[in-house]
Amino acid sequence: MKLGSLKLGRDGRLVVVSHDLAWCADARHIAPTLQAALDNWAEAAPRLELLATDLAHDAIPKERFHERDADAPLPRAYQWADGSAYVNHVKLVRQARGAELPESFWTDPLMYQGASDEMLAPRDPIPLADESWGCDLEAEVIVVTDDVPRGISREEALEHIKLIGLVNDVSLRGLIPAELAKGFGFLQSKPASALSPVLVTPDELGERWKDGKLHGPLMVDLNGEPFGRADAGEDMTFDFGTLVAHLAKTRNLGAGSIVGSGTVSNRDTDGGPGKPIARGGRGYSCLAEVRTVETILDGKAATPFLKAGDSIRIWMEDEHGHAIFGTIEQTVVNG
Amino acid sequence: MKLGSLKLGRDGRLVVVSHDLAWCADARHIAPTLQAALDNWAEAAPRLELLATDLAHDAIPKERFHERDADAPLPRAYQWADGSAYVNHVKLVRQARGAELPESFWTDPLMYQGASDEMLAPRDPIPLADESWGCDLEAEVIVVTDDVPRGISREEALEHIKLIGLVNDVSLRGLIPAELAKGFGFLQSKPASALSPVLVTPDELGERWKDGKLHGPLMVDLNGEPFGRADAGEDMTFDFGTLVAHLAKTRNLGAGSIVGSGTVSNRDTDGGPGKPIARGGRGYSCLAEVRTVETILDGKAATPFLKAGDSIRIWMEDEHGHAIFGTIEQTVVNG
Repeated sequence: MKLGSLKLGRDGRLVVVSHDLAWCADARHIAPTLQAALDNWAEAAPRLELLATDLAHDAIPKERFHERDADAPLPRAYQWADGSAYVNHVKLVRQARGAELPESFWTDPLMYQGASDEMLAPRDPIPLADESWGCDLEAEVIVVTDDVPRGISREEALEHIKLIGLVNDVSLRGLIPAELAKGFGFLQSKPASALSPVLVTPDELGERWKDGKLHGPLMVDLNGEPFGRADAGEDMTFDFGTLVAHLAKTRNLGAGSIVGSGTVSNRDTDGGPGKPIARGGRGYSCLAEVRTVETILDGKAATPFLKAGDSIRIWMEDEHGHAIFGTIEQTVVNG
Repeated sequence: MKLGSLKLGRDGRLVVVSHDLAWCADARHIAPTLQAALDNWAEAAPRLELLATDLAHDAIPKERFHERDADAPLPRAYQWADGSAYVNHVKLVRQARGAELPESFWTDPLMYQGASDEMLAPRDPIPLADESWGCDLEAEVIVVTDDVPRGISREEALEHIKLIGLVNDVSLRGLIPAELAKGFGFLQSKPASALSPVLVTPDELGERWKDGKLHGPLMVDLNGEPFGRADAGEDMTFDFGTLVAHLAKTRNLGAGSIVGSGTVSNRDTDGGPGKPIARGGRGYSCLAEVRTVETILDGKAATPFLKAGDSIRIWMEDEHGHAIFGTIEQTVVNG
């Protein structure tokens, strides 16, 4: 089953979306919003599944689903925490600022508490008031949970993962060093993130969802050129069960909590940092990483951070080349 | 005007509460929940004010307001960020772990992104699974905003502060050093916080709300003994306008955003760290601070962190000795 929120008010209106993302059916008689569905998931999910089946069989009124009309599936959420499960990425980004990678980072998940009061729609522009802030994209996988009691195990946490999707976790790299030096984590350096047009249940993903990881290339284009094709199922040191359990160690998580994978990143086949696509590699899911690799390979970073007019696309394809979660497609604008 | 949420479902039911906190009137015909009222504040606030006037004049049906029946005014919120506006506190807590206070901390607000998917009710127990985690209270002032556009000034931010209240920002001190050393801020070390029974509009506070600060002693009792009487209006280096503007520098804030002051803390009259109440001082709003002062005065910390059975009370009194925001009254329990 695929779920989305068409733009309406603060929280959108819930729709069930067809497998090919061409059609949708109003689901407000089951739950007015996706948050409301997640609040009552055990009851709402089977009814939404029936609606999805009816939609697939053309048995109910349907409307065209246009990704440009989609809001974020959760236009605002109560919890958004983002892991750094691809430790390869963490190592490279730290290398860029001359920081060592502690050995514990391979066994103890790194995660930051994000802000979720505004999640951007998949076609929303990325507003940037100051280009010196070093605006970066970060293409990631997310999961959404129902209510998660504190202190649960990884295996129990996996059962609470109800939906899967993608995020562009926008970062302001220029603000990060000073902010992290203060010791309290990210704040101004993490503006609003954008979600994929739809979220998808694990069963809909078949073999792509396995062992708490989403498998397959995460496609990232920058200004119309292929930029990233890293496989989300490879080099993920911590699976989503581990990430959710880590977040829930000392607190309950409310229904609709969003947990991110961190920037997807693959090592090169030789075990070193991944190469750009133009050099035969799988590329990157953020600019910070290509800049680090450029520094390693060429002595200095050549790829600039995002500026007004730059465009990015983030998606993942099924076996027929169709976008599974729809496409995040954003342009940077002054403002 | 004073607003509260009586326990009902996930978000409570909105009530207007009398000045003396003895009575309340159902406000669901105006907005079902406090979040819904904040979502539409310009329209809802005047109608809620009329209801408050009617309640004061005994012109409408009313019911007794029992703080034990109150949920957190926002049982879940979309945004909770906590400043460290009492730099005196920051200096002492850092001193305790041997960390210097950078000079910039006096001019650039320190703030962390908190989690808001579960805010505890004022009488909820504090669950603690492991006493070695070093459970601490932190008595603070909070403000709640309507929609705040990014990039606004301090003065503009002040206009967006709609409600004021108190919070117990529970902290697990034993988990903080390792977590902050990872560089991404607090996560497991900040379990769920508790809010005061009611939130209050600035006009209701008269002279106590001035220059973006709440003035008057913040009362904290620990196991029935006076523990803290620090004045929230003194030694607050950054006022709430500055804190809200800081948080909104790169992102919009959604209606119902909660912004905290950080632990209230006063210097002693001689300019040094505040003394315990038993030694003639104003005491403390968290255990970490008394432990630091004990270390300075006596060579080692004597006050233990919280354990099962310990109780705390946090409130602020008006000129007649009545609790303005009601009382946060929590007991630590195993679990």
